[in-house]
Amino acid sequence: MMKIGIVGGTGYTGSELLRLLVRHPHVEVVAVTSRSVAGTGVADYYTALRGEIDLAFSTLEAARLSDCDLVFFATPNGTAMNEAAVLLEAGVRVIDLAADFRLKDLDVWRHWYGMEHAAPALVEEAVYGLPEVNRAAIAGARLVANPGCYPTAVTLGLLPLLEAGAVEASQLIADVKSGVSGAGRKASTALLMAECGESFKTYSVGGHRHQPEIRETLQRATGVEVGLTFVPHLLPMVRGIEASLYAPLVRGEVDVQALFEARYRDEPFVDVLPAGSAVETRSVRGTNLCRLSVLEPQGGGMMVVQSVIDNLVKGAAGQAVQNMNLMFGWEEATGLALSALAP
Amino acid sequence: MMKIGIVGGTGYTGSELLRLLVRHPHVEVVAVTSRSVAGTGVADYYTALRGEIDLAFSTLEAARLSDCDLVFFATPNGTAMNEAAVLLEAGVRVIDLAADFRLKDLDVWRHWYGMEHAAPALVEEAVYGLPEVNRAAIAGARLVANPGCYPTAVTLGLLPLLEAGAVEASQLIADVKSGVSGAGRKASTALLMAECGESFKTYSVGGHRHQPEIRETLQRATGVEVGLTFVPHLLPMVRGIEASLYAPLVRGEVDVQALFEARYRDEPFVDVLPAGSAVETRSVRGTNLCRLSVLEPQGGGMMVVQSVIDNLVKGAAGQAVQNMNLMFGWEEATGLALSALAP
Amino acid sequence: MMKIGIVGGTGYTGSELLRLLVRHPHVEVVAVTSRSVAGTGVADYYTALRGEIDLAFSTLEAARLSDCDLVFFATPNGTAMNEAAVLLEAGVRVIDLAADFRLKDLDVWRHWYGMEHAAPALVEEAVYGLPEVNRAAIAGARLVANPGCYPTAVTLGLLPLLEAGAVEASQLIADVKSGVSGAGRKASTALLMAECGESFKTYSVGGHRHQPEIRETLQRATGVEVGLTFVPHLLPMVRGIEASLYAPLVRGEVDVQALFEARYRDEPFVDVLPAGSAVETRSVRGTNLCRLSVLEPQGGGMMVVQSVIDNLVKGAAGQAVQNMNLMFGWEEATGLALSALAP
Amino acid sequence: MMKIGIVGGTGYTGSELLRLLVRHPHVEVVAVTSRSVAGTGVADYYTALRGEIDLAFSTLEAARLSDCDLVFFATPNGTAMNEAAVLLEAGVRVIDLAADFRLKDLDVWRHWYGMEHAAPALVEEAVYGLPEVNRAAIAGARLVANPGCYPTAVTLGLLPLLEAGAVEASQLIADVKSGVSGAGRKASTALLMAECGESFKTYSVGGHRHQPEIRETLQRATGVEVGLTFVPHLLPMVRGIEASLYAPLVRGEVDVQALFEARYRDEPFVDVLPAGSAVETRSVRGTNLCRLSVLEPQGGGMMVVQSVIDNLVKGAAGQAVQNMNLMFGWEEATGLALSALAP
Repeated sequence: MMKIGIVGGTGYTGSELLRLLVRHPHVEVVAVTSRSVAGTGVADYYTALRGEIDLAFSTLEAARLSDCDLVFFATPNGTAMNEAAVLLEAGVRVIDLAADFRLKDLDVWRHWYGMEHAAPALVEEAVYGLPEVNRAAIAGARLVANPGCYPTAVTLGLLPLLEAGAVEASQLIADVKSGVSGAGRKASTALLMAECGESFKTYSVGGHRHQPEIRETLQRATGVEVGLTFVPHLLPMVRGIEASLYAPLVRGEVDVQALFEARYRDEPFVDVLPAGSAVETRSVRGTNLCRLSVLEPQGGGMMVVQSVIDNLVKGAAGQAVQNMNLMFGWEEATGLALSALAP
Repeated sequence: MMKIGIVGGTGYTGSELLRLLVRHPHVEVVAVTSRSVAGTGVADYYTALRGEIDLAFSTLEAARLSDCDLVFFATPNGTAMNEAAVLLEAGVRVIDLAADFRLKDLDVWRHWYGMEHAAPALVEEAVYGLPEVNRAAIAGARLVANPGCYPTAVTLGLLPLLEAGAVEASQLIADVKSGVSGAGRKASTALLMAECGESFKTYSVGGHRHQPEIRETLQRATGVEVGLTFVPHLLPMVRGIEASLYAPLVRGEVDVQALFEARYRDEPFVDVLPAGSAVETRSVRGTNLCRLSVLEPQGGGMMVVQSVIDNLVKGAAGQAVQNMNLMFGWEEATGLALSALAP
Repeated sequence: MMKIGIVGGTGYTGSELLRLLVRHPHVEVVAVTSRSVAGTGVADYYTALRGEIDLAFSTLEAARLSDCDLVFFATPNGTAMNEAAVLLEAGVRVIDLAADFRLKDLDVWRHWYGMEHAAPALVEEAVYGLPEVNRAAIAGARLVANPGCYPTAVTLGLLPLLEAGAVEASQLIADVKSGVSGAGRKASTALLMAECGESFKTYSVGGHRHQPEIRETLQRATGVEVGLTFVPHLLPMVRGIEASLYAPLVRGEVDVQALFEARYRDEPFVDVLPAGSAVETRSVRGTNLCRLSVLEPQGGGMMVVQSVIDNLVKGAAGQAVQNMNLMFGWEEATGLALSALAP
Repeated sequence: MMKIGIVGGTGYTGSELLRLLVRHPHVEVVAVTSRSVAGTGVADYYTALRGEIDLAFSTLEAARLSDCDLVFFATPNGTAMNEAAVLLEAGVRVIDLAADFRLKDLDVWRHWYGMEHAAPALVEEAVYGLPEVNRAAIAGARLVANPGCYPTAVTLGLLPLLEAGAVEASQLIADVKSGVSGAGRKASTALLMAECGESFKTYSVGGHRHQPEIRETLQRATGVEVGLTFVPHLLPMVRGIEASLYAPLVRGEVDVQALFEARYRDEPFVDVLPAGSAVETRSVRGTNLCRLSVLEPQGGGMMVVQSVIDNLVKGAAGQAVQNMNLMFGWEEATGLALSALAP
């Protein structure tokens, strides 16, 4: 059994990691940190985990993370960049679920995250943990930057079109919608149920951090300059992301359905629905799947792709476990054989 | 007091008409029809209307609609086209909240509504009831086709851009989301709360009837050929529509915010939010308002406009009352001075 | 026009007061205070109020409240007790929507609210603002304690039974459920949509402040010692309270339906539904109504009454406006002629 | 691998059985019937099951159920009673998830289910499938009546109190609340999201079928005559039941917390929370658990117990799988090691 540590166990990505790891056959969670509730039993804090885990939260200092084989950071942005180096030197692998190592361009990172980067060398080393793009590199990595939730949904939906040169890359649009758990578990008036329930709203209208992440990923994967209009919305529900993606077709004769099916035929966690299907977020709830639907253009040559994921699983903790499986050479779906909870 | 009849009083547009008309100072509802619950008191059927109305549902035959000054059809598509002529001949004004008179092109109508039109001459006469486009014609009309909910939200959002020739009209995109009341009050497995709650889904992926309605309205208003990709989604909530509209700018130097403010300065029910605002559906809940937000392009010259309405008010019953006010020469906002219910 | 001030305008009771008062024919809101957003336009802060009010938030100090005819406190507990005396001396009437003047027993108040009371003399003077119990006293009051939301729903449901001596007063049960807006607009992890959505939970299992308020009100109104088990729950929705009330019948021959109808026959805001009706919170959404349903005992002689209100209207701001109307001698329903928003 | 058939695969209990059985290590689902969609692939019908099952729906006639080792009936009431005898004679075990075999008293059954019973002898044979009461009998049964959802939550919450004689059995109250999936997947206006969303309502105010089921179960288990007031409500959410149970204590000196902990110490699927805990339905979402909280009386000697289950798992399909495990002698939790999906 590999020994696993989690830094930051009281947020939604932390609790979701726990949900997945307590049933993973090859790992044991030996440390979960939290400054605010150190000393409290994890199962006392999370009723849903009663009987599943016998461990108390500890401070970062007391956690003895260097004895772990792998440490997940489920922390706010700007945390892992200060802690990763020591762990890596001690031979511990690291997966950061925040944004510290996602962008190679440090100027862009500084602009969007509002701080200087503390570990530029590690940014260079880090592998962007989207297995469908970087599987081999992930398998050999010490440090993985787990992708953002929107970037996972959007990138998987646009990638086949760009790889095939089928669309005009300068005019991409992503109209994305997320359940509220995507915003994290922080006391914020804007995220109260009385503010978000029974209403639908736009946010980050001046620009969103995930836009440069998607652009960089697509550009590195395809070598094509990408122009992307990215518009996020908040759904009155807890879990799930839907991305509706629009791109002008440049080659009318392409069988786009076949293109997507071929691209993802061997992917364990990408499911291309039959032509004419409608996506729904509940069809992936609780799972590590991304389901994609490719729509017929309604004239005008505008390609429409729709992508759904569970933001806490394929958009965060599940993808992190998938990356861990790759890093340790285990079967990629280990611990991730989950059926969607629908209804 | 003008005498008002409502045909089809047990659906959501019918009950919303009742909510508005019982407080309207110039009208009295004298007949509400329903085949299924004829004989039942309206206030017994709708607890929310207890104490507001003293009238029973009647059959269409018993309703003596020809004694009314105006009749609203809150019926399924294909009903008003069979009933309107007799009423009009009797001097009764008619507003149809269904789609019977919305499209001038009868071939397109037949294709999308799956039946032959029973009253082509009335289609020609009917005025499309979007006051922001057809105010004068509505004031003089006998027969008004009340717009669809999506067409109201989308048309108001795109109109200033097309009138000004500011965008490429052949590449318009409308990514629209509606609460479930937009689908009407019919027993349908797909609309059960257990199917729609805590999930977000796409529907009508093969094409939606509101797409040709929007195209025809925009083309008639501006004389420009319009290409529109229209993608509807279902929100896990009851009331509200948001339309995110995308259009490539063709003239970069336009002050689009000023363009919208000028276009709608005198409109009582269109509110252009300050630059940089985020829309939310609850800000119009229960009201006849359309609120619009114009976003800065994120590079690439893609214009983004966001539009919210309450689908049952500005998207149906409220706009019908606004049209009635115009037809009778009353102040346009009579009976529509409603504050949004938020939270 | 009477001049009205609101202390604490950024919470849900404050915004709901604004929604009601901007359409009230006899008043003008001349001051709304907020420490955090002083200087901001009220309509800039609340998009839903755009076009309805032309006023900026001010600090308490700058608000010149002593020029008002009446001031509402929509503040946290412990605020009004420090500010009311000065206003009353200046001839300003005061309605406190918090709990400062609700309990006559100061020991009980100190226990539940965790502080010493700053104005015991005013507690004695204050009138508990439940018009169905204290109408005459409210009309003559300078200082009104607006009831809590649960106490309004529960008291109206139990009062006829106790007044008639029909039930065993020592064994009352109130199983109450509230939408999340009842908890106020404060940044709190427990009230996030990701915590409350698509789930139903109990809270305050060790006891709730509204239990002694209900007991004191019922005891003062009836002279009978009351034993009450009070169990609150949080609903995954925004607005609405339902109270299911259980009481053992002591006199089997009572026609309880008739008892309720007689008790509330002349009440403008209490609606006793026909026997056999089911209550639903949406039937009172946005209104000042309390709707009550009296159920047939299922054997065993246990009486069941169900009561629904909108916690922000009859449970807070609407009842405060009703009290204001009484205090100024206006028709009691002035400004409160609202139809429920359903669906 | 045991061969399993499911009669009625298009409702919520049917799809939930599939979700659980596709991962159960000892069984293979060989037939799923549906009259309406016979011929359609199960995974084509349920997107959430894509890749999990390779089987098409068949008619009841074509299903060859007599080759199965066990057949689940996930059908409307009145179906299994006509089909079970033939299967039992063929040596097939049967678990009915509907109500056909739940009540021993056929007069009561006829009254509540509105039909004559077709198989009285089987009613006598059938074992009520609540393992916490009837474990040994279930293990030896050919025919199991799977309990209703409310009866599961309520019975587990009241049983320890009645077994210990700690409460007055004639004055029990169950105030129960259910998510909408409990009403099944049938086209019904009353269950539309536009009717149920953002609202909370009472239903079955004249009496509910689960009341006699609970009474009979408690009486058979304890030998005590039970009086139960049972009041159901509909929650604006999909999954989950909460039951708040009230009972007058007759022996003040009992340590009720200890009583519950002792009663359920060895139960794999009943979790007694620490004293002072609040229950929430999401803590059992997707799992076969019942979590119970025992509250301190607030004076007056009224005992309060709160019970939460997932109505589709412990309240239906999960309990059915638990019963199957017992009938085949497998470890009781086989295939049911599920972590709650929270948030």
